[in-house]
Amino acid sequence: MAENVGALAPGSTIGILGGGQLGRMLALAAGELGFRTHIFCPDPDSPAFEVTRRNTVAEYTDEAALDLFARDSDVITYEFENIPSSTAAFLRSRRLVFPGVKALDIAQDRLKERNLMEQLGIGIANYRPIDGLDDLEKAASEIGYPVILKTRRFGYDGKGQATISSATDIANAWKQVGEQSSILEQRIPFEMEISVIIARTASGETQAYDSPHNIHEKQILHHSIVPAPISQQIQDDALVIARKIADELDYVGILAIELFVVKAENGNHSLLVNEIAPRVHNSGHWTIDACHVGQFEQHIRAITGWPLGPTIRHSNAKMTNLIGQDINSWDSLNAEANTCLHFYGKTRVRPGRKMGHITRLEPIA
Amino acid sequence: MAENVGALAPGSTIGILGGGQLGRMLALAAGELGFRTHIFCPDPDSPAFEVTRRNTVAEYTDEAALDLFARDSDVITYEFENIPSSTAAFLRSRRLVFPGVKALDIAQDRLKERNLMEQLGIGIANYRPIDGLDDLEKAASEIGYPVILKTRRFGYDGKGQATISSATDIANAWKQVGEQSSILEQRIPFEMEISVIIARTASGETQAYDSPHNIHEKQILHHSIVPAPISQQIQDDALVIARKIADELDYVGILAIELFVVKAENGNHSLLVNEIAPRVHNSGHWTIDACHVGQFEQHIRAITGWPLGPTIRHSNAKMTNLIGQDINSWDSLNAEANTCLHFYGKTRVRPGRKMGHITRLEPIA
Repeated sequence: MAENVGALAPGSTIGILGGGQLGRMLALAAGELGFRTHIFCPDPDSPAFEVTRRNTVAEYTDEAALDLFARDSDVITYEFENIPSSTAAFLRSRRLVFPGVKALDIAQDRLKERNLMEQLGIGIANYRPIDGLDDLEKAASEIGYPVILKTRRFGYDGKGQATISSATDIANAWKQVGEQSSILEQRIPFEMEISVIIARTASGETQAYDSPHNIHEKQILHHSIVPAPISQQIQDDALVIARKIADELDYVGILAIELFVVKAENGNHSLLVNEIAPRVHNSGHWTIDACHVGQFEQHIRAITGWPLGPTIRHSNAKMTNLIGQDINSWDSLNAEANTCLHFYGKTRVRPGRKMGHITRLEPIA
Repeated sequence: MAENVGALAPGSTIGILGGGQLGRMLALAAGELGFRTHIFCPDPDSPAFEVTRRNTVAEYTDEAALDLFARDSDVITYEFENIPSSTAAFLRSRRLVFPGVKALDIAQDRLKERNLMEQLGIGIANYRPIDGLDDLEKAASEIGYPVILKTRRFGYDGKGQATISSATDIANAWKQVGEQSSILEQRIPFEMEISVIIARTASGETQAYDSPHNIHEKQILHHSIVPAPISQQIQDDALVIARKIADELDYVGILAIELFVVKAENGNHSLLVNEIAPRVHNSGHWTIDACHVGQFEQHIRAITGWPLGPTIRHSNAKMTNLIGQDINSWDSLNAEANTCLHFYGKTRVRPGRKMGHITRLEPIA
């Protein structure tokens, strides 16, 4: 049980940095609990603005705007991890910001993230830090092809990554990532990707949802399916890893951890952490419809000092992202029974843009 | 199946008259489907304003404000039936307004409502129109005590009503309702109140939820419980009545019908209509949490020309209103497992004011 000392009352205001679909769904969940929201985003067309009364359109470096935003907020959170660290520091000097400084610092830098995993004894792909072509050539031959080059900062949905299959790809890959500080990783032949969506309160209480099986297309998440076809042992191992990371980061809110399930030569399975995200996560969207308390409400509960809700599933679920033109099927999807609709109200359709998601529910057999 | 011709696309704007908790929950449901909302309410402190970007603070008779509101809306609905008929007519000349004119006309006048029920052959309590003390004395002796005097217009939560147990109460009762056009009704010794929450599309498709058992305290709804302890026959009869009314009114949206379950001397049960409400209804709040598509989403689907969603329950449910000071228990309610929280974010607590509701879920046995 979380301590309720200092819990925010309904009517308090939650400041949210970022006005995309995650900010939108956080605001909708906050609204059901009686909280007000204030959304800060540089884009005047932010879909999250549509579901709140208060917004600020300003750059993340605009300290006058940040100051007013902080004054209007009782607690501050964010929908994406790439907010400038100076912005986070500025806000933290005025209000509680959850998830906190350690989580942001680690999640913004793949090298720090990998180093922390190693330090905690958590499985990850073999990796090397890369600061130039020389590093890259040396590391690739040490690790062995194929390898993946990933920028240390600002990567998502496969952006800032290049696969290297042989020495002839090296120069191109270095150009492709913009010749910036990166890491080189062994490319893992994994059986599947799963994730852990775990919530942690300031007092250290944790609750995790069943891990979904995540299927990507063109490096963007396409489906998350629960239950995942994994053993109880793998599920338990995944939760141990997630709690270890959440505790180490003194984490408050929803933390997402992507894991590869890898089959060893002896037939046993092991888990390697692919990435952590200090926020609500696309692979947890099914929880809105298949659980009494979904990830968005759970995040709001954690950052307002409320006790966490139960994470039990009442249904099996298959979440499917609606990417780009997929949204044009809205008028047939809305005729499907047992399909829960979540459209983000984005005005412009662009290839690769997340326009909505659906969750198809089935009774638990 | 509703025809999808003319269905509104996500991104369209739904105008909502009324900024209370029903408007708020309609806006939240519309937001999940990607719709924008514009809420019109004279009260600048309207709780619904907190969950939308667009609001108009103006009187319902302000035609300049209504005109702008209509221009910004693709379809218009309302959270309460007592909007002036001139307001409805003004808006209808500019945009589709659902539910339509017939429903509003009937629901605003208890006498017309009773007359319609009689005309449709639907059971109601014995009643008489009352326009003065003479009418009242005559009608009371004809019907037989106890009787209830109810104003024809603007009654809710027991307001505008007076119970008359004997001839000595008559003069007082007439004063109590403000000496205005009323109806006098036999007071029915009912076993319980149930309601039907039914949705109907423009093309005549209907879907109803399981009928809840409604328990009042101080004439305000306190609990709605599903399943209600009624036979399948009673449930079927209730649905037949509801469909008959919805069809007669050429209804579009959610319609609520309160019914008394009455035991006859021969032991059989029959149903008497107590009241109809042309809107989402407090006794349907449990559907948000116990069904894949709750009444608020269902209403939005109906008025935007979308097909209706399934009304199947995945859980048993007990909804409890949080009235006045009840909201102060928020910090113990939020620690209950399987209790779904809906706080309305109202800033001032007043006795009798609906501040929120909770729904306690149990697996279907």
